[in-house]
Amino acid sequence: MFQDFRLVGDRPVPIQVKEYVKRLIIRGALQADQKLPSTREMSGLLKVSRNTVIAAYEDLAEDGYTYAIPGQGSYVAAMSHSAADPGGAACQIDWKARMNEYAVSAVELDGMKQGIRAPKGVISFTSIAPDEQLFDLGDVKRAFMDRMAIEGQVLLNYGYAKGYKPLIDYLLRYMENKGVDISGKDMLITSGFTEGFDMVLSLLRPSARRGAAICENPTHNTAIKNLKLQGFEITGIPMERDGIDVDQLEAILQKQTSSFDVAYLTPSYHNPTGIVMSPAKRSAVMKLMTRYQIPVIEDGFNEELRYSGAHVAPLIATAGQGNGVIYIGSFSKVLFPGLRVGWVLGDRALIDTLESIKRARTIHTSTIDQSILYQYLLNGNFDKYVKKARAEYKRKYELTKACCEAHLPEAQLSGDGGLHLFLTFPTGVNTHQLLVACTTEGVIFTPGDKFFIQEGEGTNTMRLGFSRVTDENIERGIQIIGEQARRFI
Amino acid sequence: MFQDFRLVGDRPVPIQVKEYVKRLIIRGALQADQKLPSTREMSGLLKVSRNTVIAAYEDLAEDGYTYAIPGQGSYVAAMSHSAADPGGAACQIDWKARMNEYAVSAVELDGMKQGIRAPKGVISFTSIAPDEQLFDLGDVKRAFMDRMAIEGQVLLNYGYAKGYKPLIDYLLRYMENKGVDISGKDMLITSGFTEGFDMVLSLLRPSARRGAAICENPTHNTAIKNLKLQGFEITGIPMERDGIDVDQLEAILQKQTSSFDVAYLTPSYHNPTGIVMSPAKRSAVMKLMTRYQIPVIEDGFNEELRYSGAHVAPLIATAGQGNGVIYIGSFSKVLFPGLRVGWVLGDRALIDTLESIKRARTIHTSTIDQSILYQYLLNGNFDKYVKKARAEYKRKYELTKACCEAHLPEAQLSGDGGLHLFLTFPTGVNTHQLLVACTTEGVIFTPGDKFFIQEGEGTNTMRLGFSRVTDENIERGIQIIGEQARRFI
Repeated sequence: MFQDFRLVGDRPVPIQVKEYVKRLIIRGALQADQKLPSTREMSGLLKVSRNTVIAAYEDLAEDGYTYAIPGQGSYVAAMSHSAADPGGAACQIDWKARMNEYAVSAVELDGMKQGIRAPKGVISFTSIAPDEQLFDLGDVKRAFMDRMAIEGQVLLNYGYAKGYKPLIDYLLRYMENKGVDISGKDMLITSGFTEGFDMVLSLLRPSARRGAAICENPTHNTAIKNLKLQGFEITGIPMERDGIDVDQLEAILQKQTSSFDVAYLTPSYHNPTGIVMSPAKRSAVMKLMTRYQIPVIEDGFNEELRYSGAHVAPLIATAGQGNGVIYIGSFSKVLFPGLRVGWVLGDRALIDTLESIKRARTIHTSTIDQSILYQYLLNGNFDKYVKKARAEYKRKYELTKACCEAHLPEAQLSGDGGLHLFLTFPTGVNTHQLLVACTTEGVIFTPGDKFFIQEGEGTNTMRLGFSRVTDENIERGIQIIGEQARRFI
Repeated sequence: MFQDFRLVGDRPVPIQVKEYVKRLIIRGALQADQKLPSTREMSGLLKVSRNTVIAAYEDLAEDGYTYAIPGQGSYVAAMSHSAADPGGAACQIDWKARMNEYAVSAVELDGMKQGIRAPKGVISFTSIAPDEQLFDLGDVKRAFMDRMAIEGQVLLNYGYAKGYKPLIDYLLRYMENKGVDISGKDMLITSGFTEGFDMVLSLLRPSARRGAAICENPTHNTAIKNLKLQGFEITGIPMERDGIDVDQLEAILQKQTSSFDVAYLTPSYHNPTGIVMSPAKRSAVMKLMTRYQIPVIEDGFNEELRYSGAHVAPLIATAGQGNGVIYIGSFSKVLFPGLRVGWVLGDRALIDTLESIKRARTIHTSTIDQSILYQYLLNGNFDKYVKKARAEYKRKYELTKACCEAHLPEAQLSGDGGLHLFLTFPTGVNTHQLLVACTTEGVIFTPGDKFFIQEGEGTNTMRLGFSRVTDENIERGIQIIGEQARRFI
């Protein structure tokens, strides 16, 4: 015994000794009332200092694993249970049989589990996460240390379901600066966009029947997933070059006998098409939503990644004092996705209810994340970072666009900004087949059909995320896609 | 104009100037194509340096709010929208009318909204959050800086739904050290206990009918809330001095025609009673659960706050290789609640499904929180902290107990550890009325009825949380409760 003790480098030695002996006791290798080797002997056996063993023995006794008899030594305490109870047959539950519709759908709709993994060396256009090389780690560290110095322990105790007050105040101001009238409105901090979206849907979902949602088609695949998971039937409205097809939207609304429970819209840098909805369309859409009394969830996705053109106000600004728009924002795509912070801005009564739902689901969002983000914004780091990131992404955006125009002239391009472009090939080109061909050549991308509402739509489309691809690989990758595409056209 | 500019101390000045001008533009105080004051003039008007104004003007142009005419100056760009669209009537939605059962229940069951607020100077026994004075801020900061130095940017980009791998590995080992057989099991990291519990319930809730849950009575009020919110009917089993009443449990199980979907149990330092379930009862309960094939959610609440007696293995250890127990753990009560990190340990197939649900709800738990916690554990800080915290809480626990015995001899006491005691007064003493009387004397506590399943139960009980009360106030507060209680007995 005691031959298999191995020290690891980066952890206090007394704790390693304590845990080693604890395991022997729990596994029954050391029995109740058995005497442990003296501290001197154990020190020799484990090749650690005697003081280390003394400290470990003290902790074991304090934790109730051993008891000391003064002048004699340390003895193993009787365990209430030695691991499994041999008397009771171990309970075996057939979990698969117990899973409800929600759980089964959650797995079926989980794109990540069916997703493409990029092997090493492959050029991957599948990610639209930011390029972590751009992160200004020094500023993030300083934000953390600054905030810790100001608030200290308070940041580590319970916070509020509604969110960290200084951050809420900052973001309300931030939204005011986008032209939003915040009177009668309030804000809830969430653990990213997804939590906000899922909570709002759980509130809007009708109790007695399936919900009815209307949205752009194609649209954000996570939103499709969450709508389906919450039991919504989805009606998709096609996209035009300047945003949703307003005539079709109106036609559907006129035809519909019962109203939609919610509209989900991404007016700026729409995922996956990258299209920015024109100001005229924003007005027209909001008039229709008002006439048909449909609440709008506005996805503020990537609004900060404008590369050119004038500032366009979000729908919630267009709505003025109206309370029909629920704006969900997040800095995840432009800043740090690892910080799980998003926000929901909307009618005060609505936010008050969401606060209760938030409390029931996760109590509150990480205070550390919220306070780092707040201090980072306050220090002016965000403005500095966005400037740098925007310049870099703009360059890549233009490079990707030029490469597509050169190597994929047959495909129709869309994307006014953001971290990706969307390509529509002539009907008949199946991008899943194209992906298989490209994979063997070392290039992968996201086939676009998963962004469409109905099965079988968009099979001739793809999304190219360029944020984490080097310039060289953008050129080479798109050239390869072009070569392979030619075989399908 | 420009008279109302006010500098705040802690934010870069060019950003303040930029945001000030941006607001004037968005609010329409500066009109399209209007010329801005020259940088020299503006510098005088705002009393900031000219370089500051130059930097601010550059950023405004880059963001599309202004345009520069070389040699002439800066002009306001045409906004796509000037705040609200005066043409469209603002949409007004009657949110109250749109809220479903879930949303209405979430508000109704939200104890915090109906909770007692403690005015300044009042002695409050309502909190069972840890005492933040004990937090070792230096170690937390070091853990953050250490991890940042090792992993850097990666920590700020997207993580995995399942959790931060080093933390999962550490916690699996940690659970093994509690005697758990982890073969066939896996772990998911959640944003605290509550998220784990809510996700597990959403998976176990039957699709076609209301769910049926069985639990200790009284029990954790948040668990009652979440069970109700997820549509479970709850059957409560009374507590005895050494845990749940096993005879009653068996009687109920025998009588029941259809099986329970889930049992929720807190075997150690049960909330609110503080009772530790005896090893014999743990065995008996697990045998019943196996016989009746009922999945168990084990709440690992405060397991680390053992003050005396031998180590008691959790139910999931008692279950051996069985897969019927889902253990939900968290360090929130003993360590830092502000770090929203918990974990679910259970059958591998179950965890795989929960991973998909987690991804649909919040993508993943804050990587910063997870990596700080991991490094803090690895550095051995947790062991050191628990030792200190345990000594301090044990002292307070004994003081509180002694005060109760002295000033409230009529009340039956329970609590084997943890951060609170539970008191049961003779029938007829209504602790809500007692609370009103105590509040006027400057002392508040938590009436115990909210921990009971049925309305009207436990009206003669109270929970006294002592973790954040000073020794002096513990003595004074309990003396006052005693004086007031005498009027009701």
